[in-house]
Amino acid sequence: MTLEWDSWTLGETRYLPALAGWHESLFTIGNGRLATRGSFEEPRTGERRATFVNGLFVHPEGDTAVLGAVPDWTRVDLAVDSVPFTLDVPPAGFQRTLSLADGVLTRTVLWRGPETGLARIRFRRVLPLDRPHLCALELHIEAMTAPIALTLETGIDATVGSPTRPAWVPVGQDGDRSNLTASYRSIDGAHDLEVTARLAAAGAVTLIADHAHPRWRTVLNLDTGESMTITKTASYRSSHDGDTPAPLPDTGFDEFAAGSKRAWSQRWRQCSIEIDGDPEAERALRFAAFQLLAAAPGDAAGAGIGAKLMSGFGYRHHVFWDSDVFVVPYLTVTNPDLAANHLAYRYRCLDGARRKAAGFGRQGAFYAWESADSGDEMTPAWTRPPHGEPVRILTGELQEHITADVAWAAHHYWRWSGDDAFMSTSGAEMIIEGARYWASRVDVNDRGAHINGVIGPDEYHIEVDDNHFTNRMARWHLRRAASVVRWLGAEHPDAYHRLVTKLGIDTGEATRFDRLAGQLVLGAQRNRVWEQFSGFFSLDVVDLEAVTPRTRSMYDLLGESRLQKVDVIKQPDVLMALAMLPAARRDPDVARANWDYYAPRCDHGSSLSLPVHAGLAARLGEPEEGYRLFRRAMGIDLEDSMGNGADGLHAATLGGLLQATLFGFAGLGLDRSGPITSGGLPEHWRTVGFTVLWRGRPHDMEVTR
Amino acid sequence: MTLEWDSWTLGETRYLPALAGWHESLFTIGNGRLATRGSFEEPRTGERRATFVNGLFVHPEGDTAVLGAVPDWTRVDLAVDSVPFTLDVPPAGFQRTLSLADGVLTRTVLWRGPETGLARIRFRRVLPLDRPHLCALELHIEAMTAPIALTLETGIDATVGSPTRPAWVPVGQDGDRSNLTASYRSIDGAHDLEVTARLAAAGAVTLIADHAHPRWRTVLNLDTGESMTITKTASYRSSHDGDTPAPLPDTGFDEFAAGSKRAWSQRWRQCSIEIDGDPEAERALRFAAFQLLAAAPGDAAGAGIGAKLMSGFGYRHHVFWDSDVFVVPYLTVTNPDLAANHLAYRYRCLDGARRKAAGFGRQGAFYAWESADSGDEMTPAWTRPPHGEPVRILTGELQEHITADVAWAAHHYWRWSGDDAFMSTSGAEMIIEGARYWASRVDVNDRGAHINGVIGPDEYHIEVDDNHFTNRMARWHLRRAASVVRWLGAEHPDAYHRLVTKLGIDTGEATRFDRLAGQLVLGAQRNRVWEQFSGFFSLDVVDLEAVTPRTRSMYDLLGESRLQKVDVIKQPDVLMALAMLPAARRDPDVARANWDYYAPRCDHGSSLSLPVHAGLAARLGEPEEGYRLFRRAMGIDLEDSMGNGADGLHAATLGGLLQATLFGFAGLGLDRSGPITSGGLPEHWRTVGFTVLWRGRPHDMEVTR
Repeated sequence: MTLEWDSWTLGETRYLPALAGWHESLFTIGNGRLATRGSFEEPRTGERRATFVNGLFVHPEGDTAVLGAVPDWTRVDLAVDSVPFTLDVPPAGFQRTLSLADGVLTRTVLWRGPETGLARIRFRRVLPLDRPHLCALELHIEAMTAPIALTLETGIDATVGSPTRPAWVPVGQDGDRSNLTASYRSIDGAHDLEVTARLAAAGAVTLIADHAHPRWRTVLNLDTGESMTITKTASYRSSHDGDTPAPLPDTGFDEFAAGSKRAWSQRWRQCSIEIDGDPEAERALRFAAFQLLAAAPGDAAGAGIGAKLMSGFGYRHHVFWDSDVFVVPYLTVTNPDLAANHLAYRYRCLDGARRKAAGFGRQGAFYAWESADSGDEMTPAWTRPPHGEPVRILTGELQEHITADVAWAAHHYWRWSGDDAFMSTSGAEMIIEGARYWASRVDVNDRGAHINGVIGPDEYHIEVDDNHFTNRMARWHLRRAASVVRWLGAEHPDAYHRLVTKLGIDTGEATRFDRLAGQLVLGAQRNRVWEQFSGFFSLDVVDLEAVTPRTRSMYDLLGESRLQKVDVIKQPDVLMALAMLPAARRDPDVARANWDYYAPRCDHGSSLSLPVHAGLAARLGEPEEGYRLFRRAMGIDLEDSMGNGADGLHAATLGGLLQATLFGFAGLGLDRSGPITSGGLPEHWRTVGFTVLWRGRPHDMEVTR
Repeated sequence: MTLEWDSWTLGETRYLPALAGWHESLFTIGNGRLATRGSFEEPRTGERRATFVNGLFVHPEGDTAVLGAVPDWTRVDLAVDSVPFTLDVPPAGFQRTLSLADGVLTRTVLWRGPETGLARIRFRRVLPLDRPHLCALELHIEAMTAPIALTLETGIDATVGSPTRPAWVPVGQDGDRSNLTASYRSIDGAHDLEVTARLAAAGAVTLIADHAHPRWRTVLNLDTGESMTITKTASYRSSHDGDTPAPLPDTGFDEFAAGSKRAWSQRWRQCSIEIDGDPEAERALRFAAFQLLAAAPGDAAGAGIGAKLMSGFGYRHHVFWDSDVFVVPYLTVTNPDLAANHLAYRYRCLDGARRKAAGFGRQGAFYAWESADSGDEMTPAWTRPPHGEPVRILTGELQEHITADVAWAAHHYWRWSGDDAFMSTSGAEMIIEGARYWASRVDVNDRGAHINGVIGPDEYHIEVDDNHFTNRMARWHLRRAASVVRWLGAEHPDAYHRLVTKLGIDTGEATRFDRLAGQLVLGAQRNRVWEQFSGFFSLDVVDLEAVTPRTRSMYDLLGESRLQKVDVIKQPDVLMALAMLPAARRDPDVARANWDYYAPRCDHGSSLSLPVHAGLAARLGEPEEGYRLFRRAMGIDLEDSMGNGADGLHAATLGGLLQATLFGFAGLGLDRSGPITSGGLPEHWRTVGFTVLWRGRPHDMEVTR
């Protein structure tokens, strides 16, 4: 109702307070290191204002790391004829556009207070993609109908920005009429942060040296028809990433925007995607790519990609499998440097994963279900819903498939990039250490090898035995580890010997991986349908189609304990194996039987569920059904159909839409000669065109119905 | 964001309280005599619940007639395990669909209160198009997960329904466990109203004989999986239309729906419109036709068509030129019986128009700018904005073009229908009496005949002299009156003599009409551009394009007195003459020059402005520009882009969209052989197909790019 799209802009022309929190997420801008939510410059009732520095986690809540908002650079308090400017007073005009071409967010407001003249107030902001430590804001004000007196205050504000309490304690400040530096220590004492700002403004500027909100104040008068422009730049320097930015340059906003545009143009060349016949889907995919690129660190020392990207406080910015499975494969084929950066993050987390495995008395590496800066497990043990009793969270302990997911992402990256330097060092180490975890984890008895007491992708069923997906991924992982060891020995003897020394690989390890993979059971099969876990086929049957209409999940409706006993699943689980492993869908009758059985049982209670189903439906020869699911998936962020948009965007949905298009509808894959497609497009998609990188070379792909 | 369209349904799957008032207007159902807003059955905070009986005006505010809401038939108070059912508690699921095929509104809610079982609650309601005195409601409740105890109360509620105070005073009631009759007197003592209801429900029903809200109460228990259905019917009998409905039939909801569907099918055959290439526009036009048909009285004794149709409290349901100029021409070519009914209403108002003319010391008939039941002027003399001083309203006294607009609608209807019986009686009488008004109104001096001190369509400029539109329409009106008099004399001598006797027509009257028409000035012309009124070219120039972005009108921004002095216009004025009178756009250079001059000066401050511009742009060979305006016009009701959707839908917008399509893009017109098209479709409209009636015979039209 409120969004207005153009090919390269997301816009809105009305301000509806009820949707403002979600729109703050939608209008997030970022450059991989910094991101700022689309919160307004002037304070707004109910705002969730935030700027994030990627990877700068603090520990204000005991052991759980949180990516808290850093002190804010965007706040502007403006008064027109002494009346505070706020959209809590309905404006006479409002327009906001996010330019996907350069990452510039522009907001223009026509406004007047009671008895004041009419002012046009335009804000522009950008986090230049080519200068990841920098922020730039421009404010242009015009007196439209009468002279107006303006008072403006802006600085660096540590009083706002976190849903709970500020993560940063001011420890010093220094400034004059055009420069300001404020220093902070994180609330846990672990990090230092320095924020520098620079102001270029007409009029008499004074500095208010407020402890938590040092700011400039300027007062000036505009005659009718007159206007004025203020430019503010800021930079964030933190101890966690050793970034030492150059002094703030004395350039205008347009120059920052132009530099950002050049950098974005390069990214867009790599992310080009055209869908002849469906401009709506094309725009949704472009928006998805924009937010992935805005959140993906541009350097290998950066953080991982969070489940909410850089767009909100949800999940404390923790990294889940959402990134490895739903984002990294897309980045791999379009921007492999960004995929590699995420995998470098996973490699830096390997010691944390080793600590987690050791904590369970096992070998190798068990990746964190929720990962922050160290790679240690960050899943909270309990969650406290707004109403009702605290709920115990077991995903951090039991959702073990994460380890295979990371290996899968690394292997996918290697296949496409041909980056042997990666695989022969960090890639192999992650894969082998993960395989060792599985080897120490399985229980072998006379009926085979088992993995008991896990949570699969379907989080509605907890502590289940022989989850088909987990076992199949573990089997895949063990076999890949064996082949990587053999490949290293044959092709990269130096790297092999370094790893042998470092990890203590013995000559029989690859063989043991293979043997164990062969022993791992995949569970029961009935009429070609794999049993999701041992006992699933005996659960009470719920006719999900009959529980309509629903906007809340079956978890909300039935409660956790009842849910254990019924055959409703949160998200694809057996079908997830089909989606991730081509071998699992090789037999079309088996694939079809599992689709027919599991798709109607799926609650789509996770944001990643719909795009996976969409892509898989296309793979199974049902592109129209796939499109129907794809369209619903588009609504998760673009219509806030899950109702949690204010918490941030959904990385797995946005990446999932792109992946459903490339790997699902267009059927993108690899054979020995390079990228191939085998697509089944929905009827109204006449052509899908995109470019992928294979071994560093671009390949233009075009799929026609 | 929230609306979900299918070809024949308008739906929504989320309940957003901030949009609920507007959605109450959107989901209005009606059968021409009765209409019920899409307010919920159960009370909702902020609701504007209303059922209207068309034409049943009361006078609670002094002289101004108001179509107040009648006592409500829809209210259902439901408690699940003693917890009141309300969507103020967010539901677990919500779906509402309005079926345009039969007028059935269905709402299904999955709901549970704290600690209660889950219930599926489905309401269906219909105002059968074939039984204009009847209402039917069905409630189906199912216990989904646990046994539930239900308490249900429903009856006839005179305590709710008006924005100010109830218009109806209870004077008596009688009932038993399945029948209920309540009698009311209007607050002004002028009308009686009897509401009868009938309930078919399981369980122990008791009657609560509350004075203002007599109602049944039933209590029953549902086991898990059990459901129950309640059917309620109601009828409204009022003294104003002498309707004496049959006793309430003892039939189920499905039968009412089936009867309604048969009647709607007949209407839809006449309103079929297909746009190959733009399903969104096609659906918008179907919705527009639905709401016009739901509000247009099906019998000649009915009321007129209100500016808000039957969908809200805005404008007190008064009838403006919106109906004559923006709705009746569409109905004329698709459902001429409904156009004729509106003209019959205008004819019944002729005495009121005579009284208004006489009140100004003039001859003939001066139609009311705001018309209710009697035809007397109902425009309030003052309006009181929420903030600020009262504002004097002069439209009722000065917006004289209404008289020509009614004549124009009557003449348009006659040309298309060939209904000589109408034109030779009431049509001619309205046209001649209107022409006599103009004859007594103009001031003749040596430079010609003038009409001074009027308001044209552009209500931003008040009390202007020689308004081009008014003068041109008066000239057209005088000439048509002359030709109608001559036609009558030549073709229908009996009718002619009856009129001569009744109206005292003398032999020179037609000649005097013609002579006066020739004397009427059309104002100055500069570079082919007509001056909107004497002095318009000297007004201060405002660059409207520069006052962006705007969501509020220039009236709001500049204020009434400043607006008088600048060249911003509220809505088409000179361009309105071009839109209504083909002769005015015969010279393409003149048409183009006026478009180029006036279109950029238009504020679109009226809901009728955008569709007129859209259709005219298409007529002038600019279909893409026309479509851009058309798309914006679609947003007025379907996106609430003017922000006043809760007050009701906009008849002139909805009719205007249909008319822009038929008469604009498709270029529908008449020549001697019948309907012709000369369309210029926007690029993405491959084909537009529709059916029109000409002289009682259907003509299938198809326009291809």
